[in-house]
Amino acid sequence: MSDGKKTKTTVDIYGQHFTIVGEESRAHMRYVAGIVDDKMREINEKNPYLDINKLAVLTAVNVVHDYVKLQEKCEKLERQLKEKD
Amino acid sequence: MSDGKKTKTTVDIYGQHFTIVGEESRAHMRYVAGIVDDKMREINEKNPYLDINKLAVLTAVNVVHDYVKLQEKCEKLERQLKEKD
Repeated sequence: MSDGKKTKTTVDIYGQHFTIVGEESRAHMRYVAGIVDDKMREINEKNPYLDINKLAVLTAVNVVHDYVKLQEKCEKLERQLKEKD
Repeated sequence: MSDGKKTKTTVDIYGQHFTIVGEESRAHMRYVAGIVDDKMREINEKNPYLDINKLAVLTAVNVVHDYVKLQEKCEKLERQLKEKD
């Protein structure tokens, strides 16, 4: 868990090295990097003609889409909890 | 909401055009594209030396980080709901 200390994690995403500075654990950052790497490869399989730049942006779009859907689900759970209070 | 019909939406993200085919509404896709565009600009402000490719990948990393945190929150809400059943 984050204790305010900065961590520096070097990760490899789709063949590129990144050094990520943050307050999360290295394990968390590697987990996150792994998800991005998987998503990029998944999208590349369906869109092999995309250059890496567009592939990275479409990966971000894909993840934001998932985030927005999860946010809707979370808000619904919160409403259900309030109704039970 | 999605009714299985495919929609084609052209969006502009960080100065690049994308045509996104999906089952979501055009409004949803524009909303998602807007979030990605904002995030890229936000990250670029803190890291002006990054090329667009690395910027897009780091945007995806940023969003996946948020997604994982939100997922943890959602799972907690689900546990709380089960306890109240």
